[in-house]
Amino acid sequence: MKIPSKHIETAVDQIASLPGIGRRTALRLVLNLMNRSEEEIRDFADAFVQMKQHTKKCSVCGNISDMPICSICSSDKRDHSTICVVEDIRDVLAIESTDSYKGVYHVLGGIISPMDGIGPSDLNINALIERVQTKSVNEVIFALSATMEGDTTNFFIFKKLKEFNVAISTLSRGVAIGSELQYADEITLSRSLLNRQPFEV
Amino acid sequence: MKIPSKHIETAVDQIASLPGIGRRTALRLVLNLMNRSEEEIRDFADAFVQMKQHTKKCSVCGNISDMPICSICSSDKRDHSTICVVEDIRDVLAIESTDSYKGVYHVLGGIISPMDGIGPSDLNINALIERVQTKSVNEVIFALSATMEGDTTNFFIFKKLKEFNVAISTLSRGVAIGSELQYADEITLSRSLLNRQPFEV
Repeated sequence: MKIPSKHIETAVDQIASLPGIGRRTALRLVLNLMNRSEEEIRDFADAFVQMKQHTKKCSVCGNISDMPICSICSSDKRDHSTICVVEDIRDVLAIESTDSYKGVYHVLGGIISPMDGIGPSDLNINALIERVQTKSVNEVIFALSATMEGDTTNFFIFKKLKEFNVAISTLSRGVAIGSELQYADEITLSRSLLNRQPFEV
Repeated sequence: MKIPSKHIETAVDQIASLPGIGRRTALRLVLNLMNRSEEEIRDFADAFVQMKQHTKKCSVCGNISDMPICSICSSDKRDHSTICVVEDIRDVLAIESTDSYKGVYHVLGGIISPMDGIGPSDLNINALIERVQTKSVNEVIFALSATMEGDTTNFFIFKKLKEFNVAISTLSRGVAIGSELQYADEITLSRSLLNRQPFEV
């Protein structure tokens, strides 16, 4: 696919640098942009520059925020003694949208993944240890992906935290609500049998 | 999904304004951008502004180009008496990549679609009539989508062109090469039976 304009080529390259977007899709998106007015394109481009300039990471939890401390960490309606450890900001949004968690968060910014060259020092882990050490924290909840990388990260943080007087828990794993049993994978199914719960009416 | 930063919200809105990208995907892409340096973000944003400023439509065929006349229209190696009518620049790229067409193009910029409020006057049709009228054109090839909108557009242009001494053809329709007969749809199959070709060895 030889694009007859180097400016379009550059724009396609930039869009295709986003994860999960190939050059064919990128070209479709760029041609859509081409049909907009110059002002609209300026607004489009400016949004990213403004975002980068004005958005910071919350100095407490690592969540993304317009303020030095995010709205969750600065709220007095949240339970600051319970910290939920998540991989990135999207996990915060997912848990917030359940409306069933009143504690605070700690955003790691990734998980330990030697394959991708991500080690513990690349993550926001030391700040978590410091929070547990210096603030009155009762419980740390691990809410990372149920993958080998997630388990490795859980274990790494667990080893660092076990010397402190803090309860450590993890999200329950099992058959998803609304899903049919026959479609559950074997590992999930066997885990949910092992961790069976008293029946409640 | 309540995003805790209005700058990120704006960036997500801009990305989600692209066709086929929902807010969830947009957030994923924006968070990827957030992890880049300020300079990289500037390059990203600048690519679209530069593209809009420096890319023009070819004054002859409507193809996108860095020059007033595109490289195909200005080439003396192309057959300027054959014009292939396409919907947009991606169709030009698709046909060019076959390496089997030596004529020139005419890009309509869309097809007649009353449902989307696109009428003949919104398309680059008058320029095509003028090309046929004033230049020595022997053949016009319709290469629009095989949909009702494409057929409508073909018919509209055909009516305008039939008074001129020009051959009008359309791409052949039929079972795709490499595809199994049982998976071809009924209309394509019946059309390819009607338009059967002498067997060649």
